[in-house]
Amino acid sequence: MTTKQIAKVETNGTWDGNLKTSIYARDFSPFIVDEPEYLGGTNEGPNPIEYVLGGLTGCTSVMIGLIAKEKNFSFQGVEFKNNGTIDARGMMGVEGVSPHFQSVGFEAIFSTDESDDRLEELKEEVEKRCPVYNLIVDAGVAIESKWYKK
Amino acid sequence: MTTKQIAKVETNGTWDGNLKTSIYARDFSPFIVDEPEYLGGTNEGPNPIEYVLGGLTGCTSVMIGLIAKEKNFSFQGVEFKNNGTIDARGMMGVEGVSPHFQSVGFEAIFSTDESDDRLEELKEEVEKRCPVYNLIVDAGVAIESKWYKK
Repeated sequence: MTTKQIAKVETNGTWDGNLKTSIYARDFSPFIVDEPEYLGGTNEGPNPIEYVLGGLTGCTSVMIGLIAKEKNFSFQGVEFKNNGTIDARGMMGVEGVSPHFQSVGFEAIFSTDESDDRLEELKEEVEKRCPVYNLIVDAGVAIESKWYKK
Repeated sequence: MTTKQIAKVETNGTWDGNLKTSIYARDFSPFIVDEPEYLGGTNEGPNPIEYVLGGLTGCTSVMIGLIAKEKNFSFQGVEFKNNGTIDARGMMGVEGVSPHFQSVGFEAIFSTDESDDRLEELKEEVEKRCPVYNLIVDAGVAIESKWYKK
């Protein structure tokens, strides 16, 4: 067993009134989390679930970049489609209903000349090692994940 | 039991080369996910874990806004501090090491004249109903959560 390699990640936030929040990560411009007007927000930015789904896509994409290099897997592009369903009763406090995902769907559409087998091999390794993917899987959510060539 | 109230959330993404990805949520400007240069990225935006932590803060903040109204809990401001630790061996594929959080720390610092008991009541209700908070808890991650008055 190798030695632990602990990386610490930090963010800060400020409530901006109503349902809006500014998030500070390192020295980047803050990103805004809000809710649409029909949910009582002012719709000034994506909602929290959109950031989590974006984090899933971004994390998968980072792992694709890293693991493709390890495996000499060559590709010219990837497009991602991502969705999640939530049963709003969980957020309203109805007992026995999870407040988070009922389901997550994930598609990665590759521009590549590699074989289907090589793409499947890349997929398996990425899904084994991707932090956000495994966070969602470990929460008991079935991710319907499809990777295919354009 | 009430009827299911399923909300669907969708995002799209485009791999922009190397470890960088653009995420599209509704008609907002895309947000950029990247990694710092020392991890092989071009550092053009927060990394995926920072978006997940920001999603946790934003989600908690939305639930604070909604539930404070339900409970007539009055406050003037909230500051959030948020951190997570990851053992990088999980991302490198070392067996038996989770690729996601070893720990998550969360602080919500309120400007409010309400009592500590009322603040504790708000905390319990938010943590019961917040989607992203429960996603992380259900993944088996212990969140060290502290709410207090400024």
